[in-house]
Amino acid sequence: MNSILVVGTVALDSVKTPFGDHQAILGGSAAYFSVSARYFSPVRLVAVVGKDFPHEHVAFLKKRGIDTTGLMLTSGKTFRWEGEYTGDMNSATTLATHLNVLAEFDPAIPEEYKKTPYVFLANIDPEIQERVLQQLSRPRLVAADTMNFWIANKRQQLLKLLKKIDLFFLNDGEAKLLSGESNILKAVQQVIKLGPKKVIVKKGEHGALLFHDKTFFCTSAFLLETVVDPTGAGDTFAGGVMGYISQSGKLNQSVFRKAIVHGSVLASFTVEGFSLNGLVKATRPAIKARVQEFEKRHYF
Amino acid sequence: MNSILVVGTVALDSVKTPFGDHQAILGGSAAYFSVSARYFSPVRLVAVVGKDFPHEHVAFLKKRGIDTTGLMLTSGKTFRWEGEYTGDMNSATTLATHLNVLAEFDPAIPEEYKKTPYVFLANIDPEIQERVLQQLSRPRLVAADTMNFWIANKRQQLLKLLKKIDLFFLNDGEAKLLSGESNILKAVQQVIKLGPKKVIVKKGEHGALLFHDKTFFCTSAFLLETVVDPTGAGDTFAGGVMGYISQSGKLNQSVFRKAIVHGSVLASFTVEGFSLNGLVKATRPAIKARVQEFEKRHYF
Repeated sequence: MNSILVVGTVALDSVKTPFGDHQAILGGSAAYFSVSARYFSPVRLVAVVGKDFPHEHVAFLKKRGIDTTGLMLTSGKTFRWEGEYTGDMNSATTLATHLNVLAEFDPAIPEEYKKTPYVFLANIDPEIQERVLQQLSRPRLVAADTMNFWIANKRQQLLKLLKKIDLFFLNDGEAKLLSGESNILKAVQQVIKLGPKKVIVKKGEHGALLFHDKTFFCTSAFLLETVVDPTGAGDTFAGGVMGYISQSGKLNQSVFRKAIVHGSVLASFTVEGFSLNGLVKATRPAIKARVQEFEKRHYF
Repeated sequence: MNSILVVGTVALDSVKTPFGDHQAILGGSAAYFSVSARYFSPVRLVAVVGKDFPHEHVAFLKKRGIDTTGLMLTSGKTFRWEGEYTGDMNSATTLATHLNVLAEFDPAIPEEYKKTPYVFLANIDPEIQERVLQQLSRPRLVAADTMNFWIANKRQQLLKLLKKIDLFFLNDGEAKLLSGESNILKAVQQVIKLGPKKVIVKKGEHGALLFHDKTFFCTSAFLLETVVDPTGAGDTFAGGVMGYISQSGKLNQSVFRKAIVHGSVLASFTVEGFSLNGLVKATRPAIKARVQEFEKRHYF
Protein backbone atom coordinates (compact mmCIF):
# COMPACT_ATOMS: atom_id res chain seq x y z
CA MET A 1 0.00 0.00 0.00
CA ASN A 2 2.74 2.45 0.93
CA SER A 3 5.77 0.73 -0.58
CA ILE A 4 8.54 2.72 -2.16
CA LEU A 5 10.54 1.72 -5.22
CA VAL A 6 14.01 3.20 -5.50
CA VAL A 7 16.16 2.89 -8.61
CA GLY A 8 19.70 4.11 -8.20
CA THR A 9 23.23 3.07 -7.40
CA VAL A 10 24.76 0.69 -4.92
CA ALA A 11 28.45 1.47 -4.75
CA LEU A 12 31.74 0.79 -3.11
CA ASP A 13 33.02 4.17 -1.94
CA SER A 14 36.49 5.20 -0.88
CA VAL A 15 36.16 8.27 1.27
CA LYS A 16 38.68 10.45 3.03
CA THR A 17 37.65 13.08 5.57
CA PRO A 18 39.49 14.69 8.51
CA PHE A 19 38.05 11.80 10.57
CA GLY A 20 39.41 8.88 8.60
CA ASP A 21 40.12 7.19 5.29
CA HIS A 22 38.03 4.19 4.33
CA GLN A 23 38.33 2.01 1.23
CA ALA A 24 35.51 0.27 -0.65
CA ILE A 25 32.79 0.85 1.93
CA LEU A 26 29.10 0.41 1.17
CA GLY A 27 27.60 3.48 -0.49
CA GLY A 28 25.48 4.62 -3.42
CA SER A 29 22.27 6.62 -3.66
CA ALA A 30 19.93 3.61 -3.47
CA ALA A 31 21.71 2.16 -0.44
CA TYR A 32 21.42 5.36 1.64
CA PHE A 33 17.90 6.03 0.37
CA SER A 34 16.66 2.51 1.15
CA VAL A 35 17.95 2.29 4.68
CA SER A 36 16.58 5.75 5.45
CA ALA A 37 13.13 5.23 3.88
CA ARG A 38 12.83 1.83 5.57
CA TYR A 39 12.41 3.56 8.93
CA PHE A 40 8.91 4.43 7.69
CA SER A 41 7.81 2.14 4.85
CA PRO A 42 8.60 -1.02 2.89
CA VAL A 43 11.33 -0.41 0.29
CA ARG A 44 12.02 -2.17 -3.00
CA LEU A 45 15.52 -1.66 -4.32
CA VAL A 46 16.60 -1.73 -7.96
CA ALA A 47 20.31 -1.37 -8.63
CA VAL A 48 23.23 -3.29 -10.08
CA VAL A 49 26.41 -4.59 -8.49
CA GLY A 50 29.34 -6.66 -9.76
CA LYS A 51 30.92 -9.93 -8.76
CA ASP A 52 33.19 -8.10 -6.30
CA PHE A 53 30.27 -6.88 -4.19
CA PRO A 54 30.58 -8.38 -0.69
CA HIS A 55 27.75 -10.72 0.26
CA GLU A 56 27.70 -9.16 3.71
CA HIS A 57 26.38 -5.91 2.21
CA VAL A 58 23.45 -7.72 0.58
CA ALA A 59 22.82 -9.49 3.87
CA PHE A 60 22.94 -6.11 5.64
CA LEU A 61 20.31 -4.61 3.33
CA LYS A 62 18.08 -7.67 3.69
CA LYS A 63 18.45 -7.60 7.45
CA ARG A 64 17.30 -3.97 7.41
CA GLY A 65 14.08 -5.24 5.82
CA ILE A 66 14.80 -4.00 2.31
CA ASP A 67 13.43 -6.01 -0.61
CA THR A 68 16.53 -6.74 -2.70
CA THR A 69 14.79 -8.77 -5.43
CA GLY A 70 15.72 -5.94 -7.80
CA LEU A 71 19.41 -5.87 -6.86
CA MET A 72 21.02 -7.35 -9.95
CA LEU A 73 24.35 -9.11 -9.74
CA THR A 74 26.23 -9.03 -13.04
CA SER A 75 29.68 -9.95 -14.21
CA GLY A 76 32.13 -7.10 -13.88
CA LYS A 77 33.00 -4.80 -11.02
CA THR A 78 30.72 -2.72 -8.82
CA PHE A 79 30.43 1.04 -9.37
CA ARG A 80 33.13 2.79 -7.35
CA TRP A 81 33.45 6.38 -6.22
CA GLU A 82 36.46 7.92 -4.53
CA GLY A 83 36.14 11.28 -2.81
CA GLU A 84 37.62 13.56 -0.23
CA TYR A 85 36.20 16.21 2.09
CA THR A 86 38.26 18.98 3.68
CA GLY A 87 37.59 22.23 5.55
CA ASP A 88 33.90 22.80 6.33
CA MET A 89 33.08 19.54 4.46
CA ASN A 90 30.20 21.13 2.56
CA SER A 91 31.31 19.62 -0.74
CA ALA A 92 33.32 16.62 -1.86
CA THR A 93 36.25 16.56 -4.22
CA THR A 94 35.77 13.56 -6.50
CA LEU A 95 39.08 11.80 -6.91
CA ALA A 96 37.83 9.01 -9.19
CA THR A 97 34.63 7.53 -10.58
CA HIS A 98 34.69 3.99 -11.99
CA LEU A 99 31.29 3.28 -13.55
CA ASN A 100 32.07 -0.42 -14.09
CA VAL A 101 28.74 -2.35 -14.20
CA LEU A 102 26.82 0.93 -14.02
CA ALA A 103 27.88 1.70 -17.61
CA GLU A 104 25.55 -1.05 -18.85
CA PHE A 105 22.77 -0.46 -16.29
CA ASP A 106 19.40 -0.74 -17.99
CA PRO A 107 17.09 -1.85 -15.24
CA ALA A 108 14.31 -4.34 -15.86
CA ILE A 109 11.78 -3.66 -13.13
CA PRO A 110 10.59 -6.93 -11.52
CA GLU A 111 6.94 -7.64 -12.29
CA GLU A 112 5.92 -7.46 -8.62
CA TYR A 113 7.45 -3.96 -8.33
CA LYS A 114 5.55 -2.40 -11.24
CA LYS A 115 2.59 -1.18 -9.24
CA THR A 116 4.64 0.35 -6.41
CA PRO A 117 2.79 3.56 -5.43
CA TYR A 118 5.83 5.67 -4.43
CA VAL A 119 8.84 5.88 -6.72
CA PHE A 120 12.22 7.53 -6.28
CA LEU A 121 14.49 7.77 -9.30
CA ALA A 122 17.85 8.48 -7.71
CA ASN A 123 20.54 10.40 -9.57
CA ILE A 124 21.32 8.41 -12.71
CA ASP A 125 21.19 9.14 -16.45
CA PRO A 126 17.76 10.73 -17.17
CA GLU A 127 17.30 8.35 -20.12
CA ILE A 128 17.47 5.42 -17.70
CA GLN A 129 15.16 7.22 -15.26
CA GLU A 130 12.68 7.61 -18.11
CA ARG A 131 12.93 3.96 -19.15
CA VAL A 132 12.19 2.95 -15.56
CA LEU A 133 9.08 5.10 -15.53
CA GLN A 134 7.84 3.53 -18.75
CA GLN A 135 7.79 0.13 -17.05
CA LEU A 136 5.66 1.32 -14.14
CA SER A 137 1.93 1.39 -13.75
CA ARG A 138 0.66 4.83 -12.64
CA PRO A 139 2.55 5.42 -9.38
CA ARG A 140 0.91 7.73 -6.87
CA LEU A 141 4.03 9.88 -6.48
CA VAL A 142 7.10 9.92 -8.69
CA ALA A 143 10.15 11.72 -7.34
CA ALA A 144 13.53 12.15 -9.00
CA ASP A 145 16.96 13.48 -8.21
CA THR A 146 19.65 14.56 -10.66
CA MET A 147 23.07 16.22 -10.79
CA ASN A 148 24.80 19.06 -12.63
CA PHE A 149 26.43 16.61 -15.07
CA TRP A 150 23.03 15.59 -16.51
CA ILE A 151 21.76 19.17 -16.53
CA ALA A 152 24.77 20.17 -18.60
CA ASN A 153 25.14 17.09 -20.80
CA LYS A 154 21.69 15.49 -21.09
CA ARG A 155 19.50 18.52 -20.81
CA GLN A 156 16.90 17.50 -23.41
CA GLN A 157 16.50 14.04 -21.91
CA LEU A 158 16.18 15.57 -18.44
CA LEU A 159 13.58 18.08 -19.63
CA LYS A 160 11.57 15.21 -21.15
CA LEU A 161 11.73 13.32 -17.86
CA LEU A 162 10.70 16.35 -15.78
CA LYS A 163 7.30 16.44 -17.49
CA LYS A 164 6.57 13.07 -15.86
CA ILE A 165 7.83 13.87 -12.36
CA ASP A 166 5.70 14.99 -9.40
CA LEU A 167 8.49 15.87 -6.96
CA PHE A 168 11.97 16.94 -7.98
CA PHE A 169 14.93 16.96 -5.60
CA LEU A 170 17.91 19.09 -6.57
CA ASN A 171 20.48 21.30 -4.88
CA ASP A 172 20.62 25.08 -5.12
CA GLY A 173 23.45 25.14 -7.65
CA GLU A 174 21.59 22.66 -9.85
CA ALA A 175 18.37 24.70 -9.64
CA LYS A 176 20.27 27.77 -10.78
CA LEU A 177 22.06 25.85 -13.55
CA LEU A 178 18.84 24.28 -14.83
CA SER A 179 16.81 27.50 -14.77
CA GLY A 180 19.46 30.06 -15.66
CA GLU A 181 18.22 32.15 -12.71
CA SER A 182 20.65 33.27 -10.00
CA ASN A 183 17.87 33.95 -7.46
CA ILE A 184 16.78 30.70 -5.81
CA LEU A 185 13.07 31.57 -5.57
CA LYS A 186 12.95 32.51 -9.26
CA ALA A 187 14.98 29.41 -10.12
CA VAL A 188 12.49 27.15 -8.35
CA GLN A 189 9.55 28.80 -10.08
CA GLN A 190 11.22 28.19 -13.45
CA VAL A 191 11.81 24.55 -12.52
CA ILE A 192 8.10 24.19 -11.65
CA LYS A 193 7.27 25.33 -15.18
CA LEU A 194 9.29 22.40 -16.53
CA GLY A 195 6.88 19.89 -15.05
CA PRO A 196 7.27 18.87 -11.38
CA LYS A 197 4.53 20.44 -9.27
CA LYS A 198 6.64 20.11 -6.14
CA VAL A 199 10.34 20.91 -5.77
CA ILE A 200 12.71 20.37 -2.87
CA VAL A 201 15.99 22.29 -2.98
CA LYS A 202 18.74 20.71 -0.89
CA LYS A 203 21.17 23.22 0.57
CA GLY A 204 23.39 20.96 2.67
CA GLU A 205 24.16 22.50 6.05
CA HIS A 206 21.95 25.47 5.09
CA GLY A 207 18.86 23.28 5.04
CA ALA A 208 16.18 22.85 2.43
CA LEU A 209 13.49 24.71 0.56
CA LEU A 210 10.14 23.19 -0.47
CA PHE A 211 7.88 24.65 -3.11
CA HIS A 212 4.41 23.09 -2.86
CA ASP A 213 1.04 24.60 -3.81
CA LYS A 214 2.47 28.06 -4.59
CA THR A 215 4.00 28.25 -1.09
CA PHE A 216 7.58 28.09 0.11
CA PHE A 217 8.73 26.23 3.20
CA CYS A 218 12.23 27.08 4.41
CA THR A 219 14.18 25.19 6.98
CA SER A 220 17.75 24.82 8.10
CA ALA A 221 19.58 21.52 8.50
CA PHE A 222 19.82 19.67 11.80
CA LEU A 223 23.24 21.08 12.65
CA LEU A 224 25.78 18.95 14.46
CA GLU A 225 29.02 19.73 16.20
CA THR A 226 30.80 16.87 14.51
CA VAL A 227 30.34 15.82 10.89
CA VAL A 228 32.41 12.71 10.21
CA ASP A 229 31.45 12.04 6.57
CA PRO A 230 28.73 13.89 4.59
CA THR A 231 28.55 11.19 1.87
CA GLY A 232 24.98 10.03 1.35
CA ALA A 233 23.36 12.87 3.30
CA GLY A 234 21.27 13.99 0.32
CA ASP A 235 20.02 10.48 -0.47
CA THR A 236 19.32 9.79 3.20
CA PHE A 237 17.35 13.04 3.28
CA ALA A 238 15.35 11.99 0.21
CA GLY A 239 14.76 8.56 1.78
CA GLY A 240 13.40 10.13 4.95
CA VAL A 241 11.19 12.50 2.95
CA MET A 242 9.74 9.76 0.73
CA GLY A 243 9.44 7.32 3.64
CA TYR A 244 7.53 9.82 5.77
CA ILE A 245 5.21 10.79 2.89
CA SER A 246 4.42 7.20 1.93
CA GLN A 247 3.84 6.20 5.55
CA SER A 248 1.36 9.04 5.97
CA GLY A 249 -0.32 8.21 2.66
CA LYS A 250 -1.07 11.91 2.15
CA LEU A 251 0.41 14.40 -0.27
CA ASN A 252 -0.57 17.64 1.41
CA GLN A 253 1.77 20.41 2.36
CA SER A 254 1.74 19.68 6.06
CA VAL A 255 2.94 16.12 5.41
CA PHE A 256 5.63 17.34 3.01
CA ARG A 257 6.91 19.82 5.61
CA LYS A 258 7.10 17.20 8.34
CA ALA A 259 8.69 14.83 5.83
CA ILE A 260 11.47 17.36 5.20
CA VAL A 261 12.11 17.65 8.93
CA HIS A 262 12.32 13.85 9.25
CA GLY A 263 14.59 13.67 6.20
CA SER A 264 16.87 16.29 7.75
CA VAL A 265 17.01 14.38 11.01
CA LEU A 266 17.87 11.10 9.28
CA ALA A 267 20.59 12.86 7.27
CA SER A 268 22.04 14.12 10.56
CA PHE A 269 22.59 10.52 11.62
CA THR A 270 24.23 9.59 8.30
CA VAL A 271 26.89 12.28 8.55
CA GLU A 272 27.93 11.10 12.01
CA GLY A 273 29.72 8.07 10.57
CA PHE A 274 31.29 6.59 7.46
CA SER A 275 29.16 4.53 5.06
CA LEU A 276 25.82 3.64 6.69
CA ASN A 277 27.33 3.28 10.16
CA GLY A 278 25.92 6.59 11.37
CA LEU A 279 22.47 6.07 9.90
CA VAL A 280 21.89 2.63 11.41
CA LYS A 281 22.40 4.12 14.87
CA ALA A 282 19.14 6.03 14.38
CA THR A 283 16.59 4.34 16.61
CA ARG A 284 12.95 5.41 16.63
CA PRO A 285 13.32 7.19 20.00
CA ALA A 286 16.50 8.92 18.79
CA ILE A 287 14.74 10.13 15.63
CA LYS A 288 11.81 11.39 17.68
CA ALA A 289 14.13 13.21 20.07
CA ARG A 290 15.92 14.99 17.21
CA VAL A 291 12.61 15.95 15.57
CA GLN A 292 11.59 17.53 18.89
CA GLU A 293 14.96 19.25 19.18
CA PHE A 294 14.55 20.44 15.59
CA GLU A 295 11.27 22.09 16.52
CA LYS A 296 12.85 23.69 19.58
CA ARG A 297 15.61 25.14 17.43
CA HIS A 298 13.24 26.59 14.84
CA TYR A 299 10.11 27.90 16.53
CA PHE A 300 10.00 31.42 17.82
CA MET B 1 14.00 53.84 29.03
CA ASN B 2 14.50 51.72 25.91
CA SER B 3 16.75 53.99 23.87
CA ILE B 4 19.50 52.55 21.72
CA LEU B 5 22.89 54.11 21.15
CA VAL B 6 24.64 53.16 17.92
CA VAL B 7 28.24 54.06 17.17
CA GLY B 8 29.34 53.32 13.63
CA THR B 9 29.75 54.77 10.19
CA VAL B 10 27.68 57.07 8.05
CA ALA B 11 29.00 56.80 4.53
CA LEU B 12 28.60 57.79 0.94
CA ASP B 13 28.48 54.53 -1.01
CA SER B 14 28.91 53.90 -4.70
CA VAL B 15 27.23 50.62 -5.50
CA LYS B 16 26.86 48.66 -8.71
CA THR B 17 24.51 45.68 -8.95
CA PRO B 18 22.71 44.06 -11.92
CA PHE B 19 19.87 46.52 -11.11
CA GLY B 20 21.80 49.75 -11.35
CA ASP B 21 24.84 51.85 -10.59
CA HIS B 22 24.53 54.61 -8.00
CA GLN B 23 27.19 57.09 -6.90
CA ALA B 24 27.66 58.59 -3.42
CA ILE B 25 24.36 57.39 -1.95
CA LEU B 26 23.63 57.38 1.78
CA GLY B 27 25.04 54.31 3.50
CA GLY B 28 27.12 53.17 6.46
CA SER B 29 26.45 50.77 9.30
CA ALA B 30 25.00 53.38 11.68
CA ALA B 31 22.65 54.77 9.02
CA TYR B 32 21.09 51.39 8.20
CA PHE B 33 21.06 50.35 11.85
CA SER B 34 19.40 53.56 13.04
CA VAL B 35 16.60 53.64 10.52
CA SER B 36 15.88 49.96 11.16
CA ALA B 37 15.97 50.13 14.98
CA ARG B 38 13.83 53.29 14.94
CA TYR B 39 10.82 51.21 13.89
CA PHE B 40 10.80 49.99 17.48
CA SER B 41 12.70 52.34 19.80
CA PRO B 42 14.35 55.77 20.11
CA VAL B 43 17.82 55.80 18.52
CA ARG B 44 20.86 57.93 19.31
CA LEU B 45 23.43 58.03 16.55
CA VAL B 46 27.16 58.62 16.94
CA ALA B 47 29.18 58.85 13.74
CA VAL B 48 31.30 61.29 11.79
CA VAL B 49 30.84 62.86 8.37
CA GLY B 50 32.78 65.41 6.36
CA LYS B 51 31.98 68.78 4.83
CA ASP B 52 30.81 67.06 1.64
CA PHE B 53 27.97 65.24 3.39
CA PRO B 54 24.66 66.40 1.92
CA HIS B 55 22.42 68.25 4.38
CA GLU B 56 19.44 66.37 2.97
CA HIS B 57 20.79 63.11 4.46
CA VAL B 58 20.96 64.66 7.93
CA ALA B 59 17.45 66.02 7.43
CA PHE B 60 16.35 62.53 6.34
CA LEU B 61 17.72 60.89 9.50
CA LYS B 62 16.14 63.58 11.70
CA LYS B 63 12.83 63.20 9.92
CA ARG B 64 12.95 59.45 10.68
CA GLY B 65 13.05 60.43 14.35
CA ILE B 66 16.72 59.62 14.91
CA ASP B 67 18.63 61.71 17.46
CA THR B 68 21.59 63.04 15.47
CA THR B 69 23.16 65.06 18.30
CA GLY B 70 26.08 62.64 18.07
CA LEU B 71 26.59 62.99 14.32
CA MET B 72 29.80 64.96 14.15
CA LEU B 73 30.59 67.15 11.18
CA THR B 74 34.33 67.64 10.70
CA SER B 75 36.56 69.14 8.06
CA GLY B 76 37.54 66.63 5.41
CA LYS B 77 35.56 64.22 3.29
CA THR B 78 32.98 61.65 4.35
CA PHE B 79 33.92 57.95 4.50
CA ARG B 80 33.29 56.41 1.08
CA TRP B 81 32.89 52.80 0.01
CA GLU B 82 32.64 51.54 -3.54
CA GLY B 83 31.43 48.04 -4.21
CA GLU B 84 29.91 45.75 -6.77
CA TYR B 85 27.63 42.72 -6.59
CA THR B 86 27.31 40.13 -9.35
CA GLY B 87 25.80 36.65 -9.72
CA ASP B 88 23.81 35.52 -6.71
CA MET B 89 24.77 38.78 -4.93
CA ASN B 90 25.68 36.99 -1.72
CA SER B 91 28.91 38.94 -1.34
CA ALA B 92 30.26 42.29 -2.46
CA THR B 93 33.50 42.97 -4.26
CA THR B 94 34.99 46.08 -2.66
CA LEU B 95 36.34 48.32 -5.40
CA ALA B 96 37.59 51.11 -3.13
CA THR B 97 37.50 52.26 0.49
CA HIS B 98 38.29 55.88 1.31
CA LEU B 99 38.38 56.26 5.08
CA ASN B 100 38.66 60.07 4.93
CA VAL B 101 37.26 61.53 8.21
CA LEU B 102 36.85 58.00 9.60
CA ALA B 103 40.65 57.72 9.92
CA GLU B 104 40.54 60.24 12.79
CA PHE B 105 37.26 59.03 14.30
CA ASP B 106 37.54 59.01 18.09
CA PRO B 107 34.00 59.51 19.27
CA ALA B 108 33.22 61.63 22.29
CA ILE B 109 29.86 60.34 23.50
CA PRO B 110 27.49 63.22 24.29
CA GLU B 111 26.76 63.51 28.01
CA GLU B 112 23.03 62.84 27.54
CA TYR B 113 23.84 59.57 25.70
CA LYS B 114 26.04 58.05 28.40
CA LYS B 115 23.28 56.26 30.25
CA THR B 116 21.64 54.74 27.16
CA PRO B 117 20.53 51.22 28.19
CA TYR B 118 21.01 49.47 24.82
CA VAL B 119 24.25 49.91 22.89
CA PHE B 120 25.32 48.72 19.47
CA LEU B 121 28.96 49.07 18.51
CA ALA B 122 28.83 48.71 14.75
CA ASN B 123 31.79 47.36 12.80
CA ILE B 124 34.69 49.74 13.47
CA ASP B 125 38.18 49.35 14.93
CA PRO B 126 37.81 47.39 18.20
CA GLU B 127 40.02 49.95 19.97
CA ILE B 128 37.46 52.62 19.16
CA GLN B 129 34.62 50.30 20.20
CA GLU B 130 36.38 49.85 23.54
CA ARG B 131 36.93 53.60 24.03
CA VAL B 132 33.20 54.13 23.43
CA LEU B 133 32.34 51.56 26.09
CA GLN B 134 34.64 53.27 28.60
CA GLN B 135 32.57 56.43 28.31
CA LEU B 136 29.28 54.67 29.05
CA SER B 137 27.57 54.04 32.35
CA ARG B 138 26.59 50.38 32.75
CA PRO B 139 24.34 49.75 29.74
CA ARG B 140 21.75 46.99 30.08
CA LEU B 141 22.84 45.27 26.85
CA VAL B 142 26.01 45.87 24.87
CA ALA B 143 26.13 44.40 21.37
CA ALA B 144 28.96 44.60 18.87
CA ASP B 145 29.66 43.71 15.28
CA THR B 146 33.06 43.24 13.63
CA MET B 147 34.67 42.11 10.38
CA ASN B 148 37.39 39.73 9.22
CA PHE B 149 39.89 42.60 8.88
CA TRP B 150 39.83 43.28 12.65
CA ILE B 151 39.88 39.57 13.49
CA ALA B 152 43.04 39.19 11.42
CA ASN B 153 44.73 42.50 12.20
CA LYS B 154 43.54 43.63 15.63
CA ARG B 155 42.91 40.30 17.27
CA GLN B 156 44.20 41.20 20.74
CA GLN B 157 42.17 44.41 20.84
CA LEU B 158 39.09 42.51 19.69
CA LEU B 159 39.59 39.79 22.31
CA LYS B 160 39.85 42.49 24.98
CA LEU B 161 36.61 44.07 23.77
CA LEU B 162 34.76 40.75 23.66
CA LYS B 163 35.09 40.33 27.42
CA LYS B 164 32.84 43.38 27.79
CA ILE B 165 30.21 42.43 25.23
CA ASP B 166 26.86 40.75 25.95
CA LEU B 167 25.76 40.04 22.38
CA PHE B 168 28.12 39.57 19.46
CA PHE B 169 27.01 39.73 15.82
CA LEU B 170 29.30 38.14 13.24
CA ASN B 171 28.99 36.17 10.05
CA ASP B 172 29.80 32.48 9.66
CA GLY B 173 33.18 33.07 8.00
CA GLU B 174 34.16 35.47 10.80
CA ALA B 175 33.08 32.99 13.49
CA LYS B 176 35.27 30.33 11.88
CA LEU B 177 38.20 32.74 11.46
CA LEU B 178 37.97 33.97 15.05
CA SER B 179 37.63 30.50 16.60
CA GLY B 180 39.77 28.43 14.26
CA GLU B 181 36.90 25.91 14.08
CA SER B 182 35.45 24.88 10.71
CA ASN B 183 32.21 23.57 12.24
CA ILE B 184 29.84 26.46 12.92
CA LEU B 185 28.37 25.07 16.17
CA LYS B 186 31.85 24.47 17.58
CA ALA B 187 32.94 27.90 16.33
CA VAL B 188 30.10 29.62 18.17
CA GLN B 189 30.83 27.74 21.38
CA GLN B 190 34.45 28.89 21.18
CA VAL B 191 33.31 32.48 20.62
CA ILE B 192 31.10 32.24 23.73
CA LYS B 193 34.20 31.33 25.74
CA LEU B 194 35.77 34.62 24.65
CA GLY B 195 33.19 36.64 26.56
CA PRO B 196 29.82 37.35 24.91
CA LYS B 197 27.08 35.21 26.47
CA LYS B 198 24.93 35.52 23.36
CA VAL B 199 26.05 35.21 19.76
CA ILE B 200 24.17 35.80 16.52
CA VAL B 201 25.74 34.38 13.36
CA LYS B 202 24.60 36.13 10.19
CA LYS B 203 24.51 33.85 7.16
CA GLY B 204 23.07 36.21 4.54
CA GLU B 205 20.45 34.48 2.39
CA HIS B 206 20.96 31.34 4.52
CA GLY B 207 19.55 33.04 7.58
CA ALA B 208 20.92 33.34 11.08
CA LEU B 209 21.89 31.30 14.08
CA LEU B 210 21.42 32.42 17.69
CA PHE B 211 23.23 30.92 20.66
CA HIS B 212 21.50 31.95 23.89
CA ASP B 213 21.35 30.08 27.22
CA LYS B 214 23.07 26.95 25.87
CA THR B 215 20.45 26.63 23.12
CA PHE B 216 20.64 27.19 19.38
CA PHE B 217 17.95 28.89 17.32
CA CYS B 218 18.25 28.43 13.56
CA THR B 219 16.33 30.33 10.96
CA SER B 220 16.55 31.09 7.28
CA ALA B 221 16.39 34.55 5.77
CA PHE B 222 13.17 36.09 4.46
CA LEU B 223 13.86 35.10 0.87
CA LEU B 224 12.81 37.40 -1.96
CA GLU B 225 12.51 36.91 -5.68
CA THR B 226 14.32 40.14 -6.40
CA VAL B 227 17.33 41.44 -4.50
CA VAL B 228 18.27 44.87 -5.85
CA ASP B 229 21.17 45.74 -3.53
CA PRO B 230 22.27 43.73 -0.46
CA THR B 231 24.31 46.61 1.00
CA GLY B 232 23.32 47.31 4.59
CA ALA B 233 21.33 44.10 5.09
CA GLY B 234 23.47 42.98 8.03
CA ASP B 235 23.25 46.35 9.81
CA THR B 236 19.52 46.58 9.12
CA PHE B 237 19.17 43.09 10.60
CA ALA B 238 21.11 44.13 13.71
CA GLY B 239 18.98 47.27 13.97
CA GLY B 240 15.79 45.23 13.87
CA VAL B 241 17.15 42.78 16.43
CA MET B 242 18.27 45.49 18.87
CA GLY B 243 15.14 47.57 18.27
CA TYR B 244 12.84 44.66 18.99
CA ILE B 245 14.77 43.66 22.12
CA SER B 246 14.87 47.17 23.55
CA GLN B 247 11.17 47.74 22.80
CA SER B 248 10.29 44.54 24.65
CA GLY B 249 12.58 45.45 27.55
CA LYS B 250 13.31 41.75 28.08
CA LEU B 251 16.43 39.73 27.42
CA ASN B 252 14.99 36.22 27.38
CA GLN B 253 15.36 33.72 24.59
CA SER B 254 11.82 34.09 23.27
CA VAL B 255 12.37 37.82 22.76
CA PHE B 256 15.74 37.22 21.08
CA ARG B 257 14.16 34.73 18.68
CA LYS B 258 11.35 37.07 17.72
CA ALA B 259 13.91 39.86 17.43
CA ILE B 260 15.86 37.83 14.87
CA VAL B 261 12.72 37.28 12.84
CA HIS B 262 11.97 41.01 12.88
CA GLY B 263 15.57 41.81 11.97
CA SER B 264 15.36 39.39 9.04
CA VAL B 265 12.13 40.99 7.84
CA LEU B 266 13.58 44.51 8.02
CA ALA B 267 16.67 43.35 6.12
CA SER B 268 14.36 42.00 3.41
CA PHE B 269 13.07 45.53 2.83
CA THR B 270 16.59 46.99 2.69
CA VAL B 271 17.72 44.67 -0.11
CA GLU B 272 14.74 45.67 -2.27
CA GLY B 273 16.29 49.03 -3.09
CA PHE B 274 19.54 51.00 -3.22
CA SER B 275 20.66 52.95 -0.15
CA LEU B 276 17.81 53.22 2.39
CA ASN B 277 15.13 53.44 -0.29
CA GLY B 278 13.96 49.88 0.24
CA LEU B 279 13.98 50.04 4.03
CA VAL B 280 11.90 53.21 4.31
CA LYS B 281 9.10 51.48 2.37
CA ALA B 282 8.64 49.19 5.39
CA THR B 283 5.41 50.29 7.04
CA ARG B 284 4.20 48.73 10.28
CA PRO B 285 1.50 46.70 8.51
CA ALA B 286 4.03 45.56 5.87
CA ILE B 287 6.46 44.43 8.58
CA LYS B 288 3.68 42.58 10.37
CA ALA B 289 2.59 40.89 7.16
CA ARG B 290 6.12 39.66 6.44
CA VAL B 291 6.55 38.39 10.01
CA GLN B 292 3.34 36.39 9.54
CA GLU B 293 4.55 35.13 6.15
CA PHE B 294 7.88 34.25 7.80
CA GLU B 295 6.05 32.08 10.30
CA LYS B 296 4.03 30.43 7.51
CA ARG B 297 7.23 29.59 5.67
CA HIS B 298 8.96 28.08 8.69
CA TYR B 299 6.44 26.18 10.81
CA PHE B 300 5.68 22.57 10.10
